[in-house]
Amino acid sequence: MTSTFGQLYRITTFGESHGGGVGVVIDGCPPGIPVSVDEVGRFLARRRPGQSSMTSSRQEEDVPECLSGLEDGLTLGTPLMLMVRNRDIKRSDYNDLRDVYRPSHADFTTEAKFGLRSSSGGGRASARETIGRVAGAAVAEQLLRFLIPELKVLAWVDSVGEVSASPQNPDLLTREMLDGSLLRCPDPVARIRMEELILDAKRKGDTVGGCIRGACLGVPPGLGEPVFDKLEADLAKGMMSLPAARAFEIGSGFQAALMKGSEHNDPFCFVDGRIRTVTNHSGGIQGGISNGEAILFRVAFKAVSTLFIRQDTVNKKGESRALLPEGGRHDPCVLPRAVPIVEAMALLVLTDHLLRQMVMKGARRRDVGF
Amino acid sequence: MTSTFGQLYRITTFGESHGGGVGVVIDGCPPGIPVSVDEVGRFLARRRPGQSSMTSSRQEEDVPECLSGLEDGLTLGTPLMLMVRNRDIKRSDYNDLRDVYRPSHADFTTEAKFGLRSSSGGGRASARETIGRVAGAAVAEQLLRFLIPELKVLAWVDSVGEVSASPQNPDLLTREMLDGSLLRCPDPVARIRMEELILDAKRKGDTVGGCIRGACLGVPPGLGEPVFDKLEADLAKGMMSLPAARAFEIGSGFQAALMKGSEHNDPFCFVDGRIRTVTNHSGGIQGGISNGEAILFRVAFKAVSTLFIRQDTVNKKGESRALLPEGGRHDPCVLPRAVPIVEAMALLVLTDHLLRQMVMKGARRRDVGF
Amino acid sequence: MTSTFGQLYRITTFGESHGGGVGVVIDGCPPGIPVSVDEVGRFLARRRPGQSSMTSSRQEEDVPECLSGLEDGLTLGTPLMLMVRNRDIKRSDYNDLRDVYRPSHADFTTEAKFGLRSSSGGGRASARETIGRVAGAAVAEQLLRFLIPELKVLAWVDSVGEVSASPQNPDLLTREMLDGSLLRCPDPVARIRMEELILDAKRKGDTVGGCIRGACLGVPPGLGEPVFDKLEADLAKGMMSLPAARAFEIGSGFQAALMKGSEHNDPFCFVDGRIRTVTNHSGGIQGGISNGEAILFRVAFKAVSTLFIRQDTVNKKGESRALLPEGGRHDPCVLPRAVPIVEAMALLVLTDHLLRQMVMKGARRRDVGF
Amino acid sequence: MTSTFGQLYRITTFGESHGGGVGVVIDGCPPGIPVSVDEVGRFLARRRPGQSSMTSSRQEEDVPECLSGLEDGLTLGTPLMLMVRNRDIKRSDYNDLRDVYRPSHADFTTEAKFGLRSSSGGGRASARETIGRVAGAAVAEQLLRFLIPELKVLAWVDSVGEVSASPQNPDLLTREMLDGSLLRCPDPVARIRMEELILDAKRKGDTVGGCIRGACLGVPPGLGEPVFDKLEADLAKGMMSLPAARAFEIGSGFQAALMKGSEHNDPFCFVDGRIRTVTNHSGGIQGGISNGEAILFRVAFKAVSTLFIRQDTVNKKGESRALLPEGGRHDPCVLPRAVPIVEAMALLVLTDHLLRQMVMKGARRRDVGF
Repeated sequence: MTSTFGQLYRITTFGESHGGGVGVVIDGCPPGIPVSVDEVGRFLARRRPGQSSMTSSRQEEDVPECLSGLEDGLTLGTPLMLMVRNRDIKRSDYNDLRDVYRPSHADFTTEAKFGLRSSSGGGRASARETIGRVAGAAVAEQLLRFLIPELKVLAWVDSVGEVSASPQNPDLLTREMLDGSLLRCPDPVARIRMEELILDAKRKGDTVGGCIRGACLGVPPGLGEPVFDKLEADLAKGMMSLPAARAFEIGSGFQAALMKGSEHNDPFCFVDGRIRTVTNHSGGIQGGISNGEAILFRVAFKAVSTLFIRQDTVNKKGESRALLPEGGRHDPCVLPRAVPIVEAMALLVLTDHLLRQMVMKGARRRDVGF
Repeated sequence: MTSTFGQLYRITTFGESHGGGVGVVIDGCPPGIPVSVDEVGRFLARRRPGQSSMTSSRQEEDVPECLSGLEDGLTLGTPLMLMVRNRDIKRSDYNDLRDVYRPSHADFTTEAKFGLRSSSGGGRASARETIGRVAGAAVAEQLLRFLIPELKVLAWVDSVGEVSASPQNPDLLTREMLDGSLLRCPDPVARIRMEELILDAKRKGDTVGGCIRGACLGVPPGLGEPVFDKLEADLAKGMMSLPAARAFEIGSGFQAALMKGSEHNDPFCFVDGRIRTVTNHSGGIQGGISNGEAILFRVAFKAVSTLFIRQDTVNKKGESRALLPEGGRHDPCVLPRAVPIVEAMALLVLTDHLLRQMVMKGARRRDVGF
Repeated sequence: MTSTFGQLYRITTFGESHGGGVGVVIDGCPPGIPVSVDEVGRFLARRRPGQSSMTSSRQEEDVPECLSGLEDGLTLGTPLMLMVRNRDIKRSDYNDLRDVYRPSHADFTTEAKFGLRSSSGGGRASARETIGRVAGAAVAEQLLRFLIPELKVLAWVDSVGEVSASPQNPDLLTREMLDGSLLRCPDPVARIRMEELILDAKRKGDTVGGCIRGACLGVPPGLGEPVFDKLEADLAKGMMSLPAARAFEIGSGFQAALMKGSEHNDPFCFVDGRIRTVTNHSGGIQGGISNGEAILFRVAFKAVSTLFIRQDTVNKKGESRALLPEGGRHDPCVLPRAVPIVEAMALLVLTDHLLRQMVMKGARRRDVGF
Repeated sequence: MTSTFGQLYRITTFGESHGGGVGVVIDGCPPGIPVSVDEVGRFLARRRPGQSSMTSSRQEEDVPECLSGLEDGLTLGTPLMLMVRNRDIKRSDYNDLRDVYRPSHADFTTEAKFGLRSSSGGGRASARETIGRVAGAAVAEQLLRFLIPELKVLAWVDSVGEVSASPQNPDLLTREMLDGSLLRCPDPVARIRMEELILDAKRKGDTVGGCIRGACLGVPPGLGEPVFDKLEADLAKGMMSLPAARAFEIGSGFQAALMKGSEHNDPFCFVDGRIRTVTNHSGGIQGGISNGEAILFRVAFKAVSTLFIRQDTVNKKGESRALLPEGGRHDPCVLPRAVPIVEAMALLVLTDHLLRQMVMKGARRRDVGF
């Protein structure tokens, strides 16, 4: 198990979906940074289930408690521990599943790896695990705001099933605007069709997947640590470590494979006193290092595996079993709730790389600072 | 800079394209493993330029030398250092580029990060950097063969520009078969059209991108370290750290976003005495852990940025400059040479995760082994 | 700040002395291990203050709560989070110290590093920080007991000030025996003189230091990871990271510097079917790797810096200030309470190295285990 | 095996005593730093054997070659690989030792760990392994000189056997002065007696141990990363990872255990515009963080295990064997050659911690620097 993410801004998360609680220890956050636990709570609220008929009906207040690392609203430079207790646990929902492998869940692989698994719910394979990530990112965002006020990280629902939103200009989007709709999709026309698709799937006991786009604006040039910790490599890892994530693109992504070099290359130009690129097929990263343009990426999520439809499977002994509609509380579509989680992973990666680049910058200027 | 990859099987690579040499230190390889340096050389030869009219004409023999960690053909359990000297260096090719930023190269971002850059060639941004990765993987493959003889890692060219190969059954492919054609594409019809596309681009001084598919067969269930080092997350990171990689998919990838849960879920079945899945939309990984099915992934590579066409750009001062056709030696299409590099990253990830899982397995069995 | 210790068995600790609580996240503990939280509580009780007139009068129950990673008394293979809330906090004790640097405390250096410090108490420089370490080690001990039942880690007070205990045969000691006296010193004669020394210092408002010896029995040969993570190097680091630790010896330690090679070398012999050494000047470690003999070490702790005697110092502006007897609750002698903490660090190091060696062993035997 | 040391300034060393060569990859060295490979060579020459009748007669020129990371005398921010080929290899010296365990060598433990060992010489247990460390440190020293010109790291022989040098004021020492005598001991009277002791041991085929003192001057306050990577903890680990090291002290060390708090506490004062301590029992580190005073430490080394005296031991089967005087080339006293190696480990630790502290400092000042 690896529950730590990041090199200098490091989060270590803990907690099963049906244990005592979930949370995070943040190590490496610099001292003297204003951090509001309420703001962490508001970020957490964005990923909370039970927000609408389109998401899980599990009720969790998810008010975070901070036990360390903060005093009088300022970080001490010591680890912050933030946690949320689990309250709405219904173990009985899951009791009859102990010996049956649910298709495309982590039941079988968890047992293959560990020899046992949490008796109820998904354990660490549940999306509830992401609370620690989001809490860590909510602190990261406050640190970034302190260091680079103009930096902005946004994500939105780009597609649900076959329904895609029209292309967006991320400069014109705000998080408030995106959170204004339950679907967190900025295209009002697509949104209606997405809702229909989700509610239709729900009625049928089925689920739908989709894509999320992310944009990081105001990122300074120079972030990324070739050759292995290139910025897009760490973004890819962060996103692909999310439950149900199946694909990741930076910039033009798979489309880039169809383009000639003469089409894909982003010419440099000089605008408003700084060097920029005319186009941004690179998605803000070249040679693994940010170039100051918007960092643009896309993540695909598969449909949730928990269905309210009869499915065929086997039990531990390999005997055929019919999996009847499950009584648990689950999302017909995880996409809207995945938006803040995608933002969280981008914030974590950027914060870590910003701190890493400070070493280079400080040394270049002989800026030892003592 | 981060030049180390892996947690237990760790490679640390070094070397610029136009410095004294390139190579790798492998730390964490268990002792007593038969390793042939000649076999490393043969793997390296597969990524070598100068193999045909379709790849760079740079001539490098790339015969590796091993200075440590091996005795009488067996690993000692100590670090292996493998290196290749650079021979065919033409610094003058690049002299007039010192002040100009080549579009979509790492020139600008390297300077933004480091404040300076290698005077010639791409430094560590050159594909020559991958020699260390491949050498590390060639040893990993020999370790894997010792531990799990039936494990097989393969990659092939899936598309060049708009031309795609037909779907392949990886069980029927062999590396020899794939290496049998210059393009490393198993579809003979598509191959012809791909070649035409590449040669056409070359004639025009342009370049083309494409996709590579990879398959890991015979991987035991249980590899992957949730929640952050999920197997697909580490594969994604490894692949996206490659030069020119722009997108990564596991299993159904972006296609998964279009599918209903009832379509995407892989039902379990019991075949030949073990639990398997009927379909494999998951691409062999569920909940971040291998399930014993074929691990299937795809990586998109953009077209090479070095063109033999006039391009507009700026110099360090922001002044407009025309970039005339470059005199360097470059590939019109990197795809065939990227095949062994993609295999290399998959081998490195699998080897690292195999060693990591040994800890779990040993402990579960109280198999301390002393 | 670095709050993580270990490579495979990793603890991440958190908590200030006067914040909401202190604790640990344990990542990397294998699944299926019987772990009792009550036993963790008993280990914690051994380091608790307020046990006698010789230690701090601060009252903390320190009953640990486990929020994750355990189910039905077995580890899940996921992170265990164990925490203890702070209850007996008296912030007012420290209010007048905000601008004055207490001699040999971390006040000045914490400000030099972080630019600020916790307003009260020692923050993370307090011995209360060690609760996380001890909780992590109490789980490690249960894991070790599962894997190697005969392994035993013991520590005892070897000296207080000038008073030294007679040499001990660790095979004859038990933790119960050592815990039987308040001083945790097995020599009853020395113990009386140590107590006198401590109470005399207490009467004078002064403090005393001393040494702790540790012994690890039943450690299998083969633990230790040269060249940097040699077993004695990691033990040294663990011990020297403890508050007030000033020196570390393995085996003969500084005495070894006085001996000829012919005196220090430990001849090998063959006893009871296995290869052993006649003497054990090496302290159970040769070439950085355990040899199966008792691992023997010693750690020196300076006297506690908090005195009830007037001291001269300066404030933040550099102005001379007299530091009057402090009203806080502190130990005249930290040694007895340091005993379980020293054991804790040894347990953490051994557990980590045991898991690391499993990789080597598994590979050597081709014991992939799937 | 762990062959990497450091978090941000990371060295990865490789090479056996009788393989093709030894060396280091340095990752994390900032760009634009003037580095001379000749200076690395001069540092290496200080640890070279064959310098006098008192050290091994093995002849190695040890001229380092740098294959990467440097251009026109400036670092590129990419990994530096520095290596030295092994030349004076006499395998036959060791042939008859294959089945016999030399007392207090790493033969037995290496086999216990790895199941095999290098057929000749000590493999990685040989002091030749330290070449990579020293080369890495020689670059670190040049980086430190660039960043903090006044910083100075020195070590000297403090004792050989029972003969101790008089206390020294490190401010008055220079490396040139110390290197001026073969023994690297600044006390001319003690030096004569040390030489007699060593030559007497040599005549008898025996060996002697001793202690080295180290001093780091001009270190800024604020270095050290509590709670686990305290500066003295990382120094202890670095030193205790050296071959034959047996004990480590910071500041008063074991002497501290004998002192009252009122004796050991270092009062603060204000001198020449900055806060200092009147005494320096702390050895320049308080709470794990440098306080700006001289960092003072001591390391004990046991006598070399290779003797030219008959010794009793056993072979692999446990059969008694007499080990006759060995024909290899070894030091009667390793101390003089250990001096530059001790300096090297101190340089590596300080450099790593300096870079780590830059992150804190940069963030505190909102000094993002882009």
